[in-house]
Parts: sequence; C-alpha cells; structure tokens
Amino acid sequence: MVGTVPAYDDQNAFAKILRGELPCFKVYEDARTFAFLDIMPRVPGHTLVIPKAPARGILDISADDLAEVARTAKTIAIAAMKAFDAEGIIVQQFSEAASGQVVFHLHMHVMPMKSGVDLLPPQSRKEDAAVLDNHAARLIAALGG
Amino acid sequence: MVGTVPAYDDQNAFAKILRGELPCFKVYEDARTFAFLDIMPRVPGHTLVIPKAPARGILDISADDLAEVARTAKTIAIAAMKAFDAEGIIVQQFSEAASGQVVFHLHMHVMPMKSGVDLLPPQSRKEDAAVLDNHAARLIAALGG
Repeated sequence: MVGTVPAYDDQNAFAKILRGELPCFKVYEDARTFAFLDIMPRVPGHTLVIPKAPARGILDISADDLAEVARTAKTIAIAAMKAFDAEGIIVQQFSEAASGQVVFHLHMHVMPMKSGVDLLPPQSRKEDAAVLDNHAARLIAALGG
Repeated sequence: MVGTVPAYDDQNAFAKILRGELPCFKVYEDARTFAFLDIMPRVPGHTLVIPKAPARGILDISADDLAEVARTAKTIAIAAMKAFDAEGIIVQQFSEAASGQVVFHLHMHVMPMKSGVDLLPPQSRKEDAAVLDNHAARLIAALGG
C-alpha cells in the first residue's frame, strides 16, 4: 500500500503488453516509457503513454518516471498534431476506480483534437485493426521513426 | 509560432497571477512551478499546476518544464487525497482552443475524486472565497507547509 493505493497487480493488460504477452499498436518506446494506440479511441490518434516500471497511477509512480511519461506525452502530442492535422491536444490521466481508471497501470491519454469534434465517450467502440494500423503508421512517420 | 501554435501572450490571467497582478488561492510554489485553486472548481480541491516560464500548452512548453509540472502535479495529488479524503485523482491538460483551453498559459488540472461524485461541467460556478480559503489551507496543511 502507498497511502490508500492497493499494490500493483502485474496481471493487468498493459503489463502484459509490456511483456509482449498481448499485442498492441505500438508507436514509440524509449528507456523508461512506451506508447501505443488506445483500441477504443475517443478520437482518431488517441494514444496511451505508460511507464515501463510498475505503477498503478499518479499516487505510486516515482516522480522521475512520471516526469518521463510527461516528456513522452509531449513528443506524442507534437507528432499527433502533424499526423492527424489536429488543432489542439487533450491530455488526461485517471488514478484509481473513483476517477474512472479501468486498467491499473498508469496511462496518460494523448488525444489530438479538431474544432467542432467532440470526444467519444470512454470505451464506446473498438476500432478496426486496419484503421489502427494506419493511424499507428501515421504517428510513427510523424515521429520520424 | 511553434508549428501551428500562436505566440505566447503575457496578458493572460495566469501570467498576471505569476506576476502578482491578480490574486489567487496559492497552495504551492517551487523554482519552476506554481499551484493554486481553480476558482470554478469541478470538484472540491480542484487545483491548477502551471510552469513559471511562459508556455501556452504542451506543444510549446520545454520538455524540462513539463516534467517539473508533472512532478508538482504528483505532489499536489498526494496532498489532495489526504486533504479531501479522496479515493482517486483526475489529471487533465488542454492545449489550444480546439481542446477546450480557455486561458493560454499551460495548466494541469489536478482533481481529487470520490466514488459516485461526478465532475461539474467546466467553468460552471465560481466558488465562494471563504470556501476556497478553507480548501487552500487544507491542501497547504496536507503538503506539510
């Protein structure tokens, strides 16, 4: 326990993605962070940035890892503006069930926005794999990778 | 211009707060960041963390300053859990008008959440100064300051 936070459970879906036990639409990786597409995007290009180290959320992540997640979120944001011809970015991060968190490995949502286009509700629709493949490729190209 | 981002305008409300030209309900300050209450809180304890350096949003802030804003957001989050007996935290950051940004100095929202209590809509109601004074004092006490 860290304050009121339960212990990290390494059987969550994002831990499995990090270990290669589940597939993902990867767009970026560095020493401490990893980024991949949300398969239920609220807008095209909706990306999740996670720390490689185990952490449920903002309460138990190390300050250094959180700082690295923020750096990667900026990198993704700039690429997403280009890749999706966006006009703005929403960043969101939910810690614990009372906030709406569903997968208990910290993830920072990075969502490229256009005027007049609202976010879909969370977890409303699983996107087609072909569309996600295309979106990941556009982001990777914009990242210069 | 940084990509599609207009230049920073130092007449925004948060620049004025940083210069002491407007009052605020301050809760925290360090070398590179500053935190104060949102006067139109979406939940009790809704706090804004900003960089001292000029930046509109995630696209033009320096990666180092963003990392420091994230560190401070974690500090505030932990204090807000104690101060407001919270069960979770939502962090949000909006860049550019298309995302819903209203004040064009980067600000990271830190919102302590309880099960069954939804966020008010953005900018729905200005809170009483006495309530904000009390909330700032609770956060400062939880920060150990």
